[in-house]
Amino acid sequence: MIIVMQHGASKEQVDHVFERITSIGLRYQAIYGEERVVIGVIGEEDLIRTLPIDAMPGVERSFPILHEFRLADREWHKEPSEVTVDGVVFGGTKVVVIAGPCAVENEAMLVETAERVQAAGASMLRGGAFKPRTSPYTFQGHGESALAYLAEARSATGLPVVTEVMDTADIELVASYADVLQVGARNMSNYSLLKKVGKLGMPVLLKRGMASTVRELLMSAEYILSNGNMKVILCERGIRTFEDGTRNTLDMSAVPAIKSMSHLPVIVDPSHATGRSAYIASMSKAAIAAGADGLMIEVHPNPEEAISDGAQSLTLDQFDQLMRELGPIAAAVGREI
Amino acid sequence: MIIVMQHGASKEQVDHVFERITSIGLRYQAIYGEERVVIGVIGEEDLIRTLPIDAMPGVERSFPILHEFRLADREWHKEPSEVTVDGVVFGGTKVVVIAGPCAVENEAMLVETAERVQAAGASMLRGGAFKPRTSPYTFQGHGESALAYLAEARSATGLPVVTEVMDTADIELVASYADVLQVGARNMSNYSLLKKVGKLGMPVLLKRGMASTVRELLMSAEYILSNGNMKVILCERGIRTFEDGTRNTLDMSAVPAIKSMSHLPVIVDPSHATGRSAYIASMSKAAIAAGADGLMIEVHPNPEEAISDGAQSLTLDQFDQLMRELGPIAAAVGREI
Amino acid sequence: MIIVMQHGASKEQVDHVFERITSIGLRYQAIYGEERVVIGVIGEEDLIRTLPIDAMPGVERSFPILHEFRLADREWHKEPSEVTVDGVVFGGTKVVVIAGPCAVENEAMLVETAERVQAAGASMLRGGAFKPRTSPYTFQGHGESALAYLAEARSATGLPVVTEVMDTADIELVASYADVLQVGARNMSNYSLLKKVGKLGMPVLLKRGMASTVRELLMSAEYILSNGNMKVILCERGIRTFEDGTRNTLDMSAVPAIKSMSHLPVIVDPSHATGRSAYIASMSKAAIAAGADGLMIEVHPNPEEAISDGAQSLTLDQFDQLMRELGPIAAAVGREI
Amino acid sequence: MIIVMQHGASKEQVDHVFERITSIGLRYQAIYGEERVVIGVIGEEDLIRTLPIDAMPGVERSFPILHEFRLADREWHKEPSEVTVDGVVFGGTKVVVIAGPCAVENEAMLVETAERVQAAGASMLRGGAFKPRTSPYTFQGHGESALAYLAEARSATGLPVVTEVMDTADIELVASYADVLQVGARNMSNYSLLKKVGKLGMPVLLKRGMASTVRELLMSAEYILSNGNMKVILCERGIRTFEDGTRNTLDMSAVPAIKSMSHLPVIVDPSHATGRSAYIASMSKAAIAAGADGLMIEVHPNPEEAISDGAQSLTLDQFDQLMRELGPIAAAVGREI
Repeated sequence: MIIVMQHGASKEQVDHVFERITSIGLRYQAIYGEERVVIGVIGEEDLIRTLPIDAMPGVERSFPILHEFRLADREWHKEPSEVTVDGVVFGGTKVVVIAGPCAVENEAMLVETAERVQAAGASMLRGGAFKPRTSPYTFQGHGESALAYLAEARSATGLPVVTEVMDTADIELVASYADVLQVGARNMSNYSLLKKVGKLGMPVLLKRGMASTVRELLMSAEYILSNGNMKVILCERGIRTFEDGTRNTLDMSAVPAIKSMSHLPVIVDPSHATGRSAYIASMSKAAIAAGADGLMIEVHPNPEEAISDGAQSLTLDQFDQLMRELGPIAAAVGREI
Repeated sequence: MIIVMQHGASKEQVDHVFERITSIGLRYQAIYGEERVVIGVIGEEDLIRTLPIDAMPGVERSFPILHEFRLADREWHKEPSEVTVDGVVFGGTKVVVIAGPCAVENEAMLVETAERVQAAGASMLRGGAFKPRTSPYTFQGHGESALAYLAEARSATGLPVVTEVMDTADIELVASYADVLQVGARNMSNYSLLKKVGKLGMPVLLKRGMASTVRELLMSAEYILSNGNMKVILCERGIRTFEDGTRNTLDMSAVPAIKSMSHLPVIVDPSHATGRSAYIASMSKAAIAAGADGLMIEVHPNPEEAISDGAQSLTLDQFDQLMRELGPIAAAVGREI
Repeated sequence: MIIVMQHGASKEQVDHVFERITSIGLRYQAIYGEERVVIGVIGEEDLIRTLPIDAMPGVERSFPILHEFRLADREWHKEPSEVTVDGVVFGGTKVVVIAGPCAVENEAMLVETAERVQAAGASMLRGGAFKPRTSPYTFQGHGESALAYLAEARSATGLPVVTEVMDTADIELVASYADVLQVGARNMSNYSLLKKVGKLGMPVLLKRGMASTVRELLMSAEYILSNGNMKVILCERGIRTFEDGTRNTLDMSAVPAIKSMSHLPVIVDPSHATGRSAYIASMSKAAIAAGADGLMIEVHPNPEEAISDGAQSLTLDQFDQLMRELGPIAAAVGREI
Repeated sequence: MIIVMQHGASKEQVDHVFERITSIGLRYQAIYGEERVVIGVIGEEDLIRTLPIDAMPGVERSFPILHEFRLADREWHKEPSEVTVDGVVFGGTKVVVIAGPCAVENEAMLVETAERVQAAGASMLRGGAFKPRTSPYTFQGHGESALAYLAEARSATGLPVVTEVMDTADIELVASYADVLQVGARNMSNYSLLKKVGKLGMPVLLKRGMASTVRELLMSAEYILSNGNMKVILCERGIRTFEDGTRNTLDMSAVPAIKSMSHLPVIVDPSHATGRSAYIASMSKAAIAAGADGLMIEVHPNPEEAISDGAQSLTLDQFDQLMRELGPIAAAVGREI
């Protein structure tokens, strides 16, 4: 950590900071510039973070030097990680495509969707049983019965399933049906949920919060990793900005950013990021070209009958067509789909 | 709801939209403009919201006309609401000041703080027992023992206490000690938590999420209200923007915005909004002048020893001084403090 | 335009709005919903925009229905436009790569860069003569002498050159050397500059402002187009968000958004968007996969000696390598490079 | 400046950075931490900023330590500055209120407005002659004739006038009529305009750009100051965020932030910040309570006839009423109005 003293900070103030640093067993080195004293703290940075440095008299501000995340850090785990779910590998050569409806509506539509997306080349099925909705008056998901339909669709196709868990009270229930637990964007900073999901040990798909930086996404992953679960797949799904032509703004540079900072696999969800089915093909191609390890795409047999998110769902035929177009892109970056 | 058809939408597409509207028992009226057909849907807007209008062929976009929130809506509850907590009234003439440390560290510091802020004029005590922290490696709060210290501080001073609940599994525990349950910014869209807190019936302090609009804050309040609990106090605590000189950007216009849209009381938290103790006095005055019903301020006997958020805490003396300065502002807007 | 009256608006207020609409020669149609009156205005929308509808008593808000841009609108010009600069076609099958240093530093470095990027496959040379810099104490560009070096580099290689104009007073000077005038992000809403550049008739590269929506970018283009100049190339170069791991946030979905709304060609500048040379390759590939018509990339013979923006410049060798990698991506979306 | 080397940077890379630092006459001091080498550069920071440090091999990132602005910096000019315009003092005890219409529409309305706002206590008149409008098809201001009306209104009332200049070509024309030149939000980073306005020496009202940080606002002020003009008044007028219930988000904490970093006076424009006349009174009070040196408020004799920005204008009576309410707030913070 680097501590910048205020212009005109007194010798007593500087000495006091020195003292606080050594009092917790760390060392320091001071640089006396022409206008300010700058102090470098040497040693375990987590330790110095326990001190409210910025509240000490005479301190202007402080900068961390080291990453706050460790288990997620590529510096210490130099090779990319692979997360395997029932034979499907995230982070390998093959780009993994997860497809399915926003919400599980009934068994028939789910099985039909599963069979069609599988035929088109998808490797995993998505579908919401518990839905986080802005309004309490709209459909909140079919809950456990939807989980059962997901299990049926898996039986029918062999596709592993990913579905969201929103409440710590539901973790075991959801885990008993799902192959991957999804922690949604709205819960990225729900640390209770992250800890409990971490302790369970099942693969987790962690979506970036809409007001969260990439660094904070990695810190949330660290909550899962530090509870003993290394099977974490990250997902960029758009952040909130002033641009109102799309539902969110897809931060495509999060893909190389995550790859450079972490070893964890990362996928992109163009459906939630854009909120518009017309942009999904373009953004799916871009994500693969950018180096993403996978895609999560909303597909519905009849989007205009969808209970939620119809406007951002592809039809089964559109998905077919998209999968055909993605092959050459994957090949162009040395991967397959 | 207003539905705008695409330029060149066919008669079949327009008729199909008509049909979908009438199929759920609503009426419509069409306006044939020079370039586009616009359709107004008449009737219960929640009903039309169940249809994925934007996914229908030929539809360009749709606009809601009515508020999605109802119980929070000032249109239907024209007088401002008061929420009373153990004799303390939010939304009345008196501006309520909640003060206390970010985290409850030990009983002695908490009781000292409670006594001093009470003497200075605060009406309620805050203090975190469960802390949402970005890093899993930093202090997460003392949990139940901190709750017990809060109860001690209440016994010593008579100040009601507000503290955060982060996990649905902890609601009953926290409720057994607290007078007001706080739902923090990171959990504003944790709908499971909102529903369960709503069912409990205790007063709730609901903080605005850092990427949430005022409208979404009111929708989250609606989750509590619609579960039968009308005792909701809203809190503006800063939103996330590109400005990096402050921790967040305090959206002061949220105060008149909430007042115009809703009857619920609203307070401002200048500590989290700015992250800098030097700006708290200025923002506290501004909040009262803007019409806020209260303030929530972090105060610590010794900020440079604080376990968390020292940089945004006032000392006890600074808080004393601030309270003296707030009186004339409150008087200038016809209130007291 | 759709006008939503307030809940409880009086008959007089509604009649007054009717009157104002008809007073400027337009027609209207009213929809009487259960809670509100909604008025559709029929006729030339620019006319109704001259009225301050939202300030009329009883009006809650109003929505435009039609695009405010016309000449840029794809509805009226259904085929994509091509902009040709000295044989280089933007918007055709070939993806155009513009490369060169952030600032023109001297003739030798510029000619060397031009020759190398041409050999690698670039079609146009970029280089700043007038530089918009946050600080008045940093390098502001070599001005006219830099323009002369650009002309030299063009003579040496045949590459057309694009360079920024910042001041209406410099337009003719810059135009006398450049093949394409660049209007930078900071000047996207400098309407005086846009008008004068529009009147000149030379090809213009218009960069998106960092706080501007795609719609506003198209409105700024409209300033150029409506002054008689149809040779406009748009450029996505990142917008300002809370994410601080990159210089800006590259809004990749602006590519399909622009393509769906407008016929104008659009290119992507991954150098300014990310501010990090390590992410340029990934974002360049993504941009082509997303459907961009070109790229603008900062290249410097020795980035660590660059006077400005070294951290986001590729070396000549890195650019070579990147161009080789882009070929297969272009082919995968049916284009060449 | 602090330079953080990458984890694993080689001795050669570190030595190379040392060399570059000393090659421009500066000194350095290195801190060898457990994981990284950190280098503090000692001496004139502007000098080190000329080197593209972040582009040097082995460098992870660099932090500035000193402010980039100097003449605006409160560290070197510890007392607040006053800017006097024809007897009106910005930065003194009296809170200065500037009022007037968004655009100058005709002489009668302007003189009427001037007389009424003067009677209500305003000290200066605003009015746009050149209007920056998103659409080229909307009213662009009456130009020079509007300037003449402003001069008439000044003659009639004695109120000094402030009006916007958008084009370097118009500076002398506008200066020949105005008492204060306004540089609008869209031109805050139009450095050519800033330089030329700086050279002129007239008082300048510099509005914060909607995507600009407070630090960048001060850097833009520095362009004016460093050209020899110390008469700069800053203006907070809202920044662009995701919140769409207001036109922009008024960053009220910019007031104490500017006061702590700079000696320049700062005013607030609640009209543009919120875009809603209903919120202006609340935000005006808050601005004064926060410590602002003045307000700029849009007032129109008949907002629903206004050519632009009617929805955010107060009527003359509303302005009267507001001025009466502001007095007690000013008194509560030891000022008058």
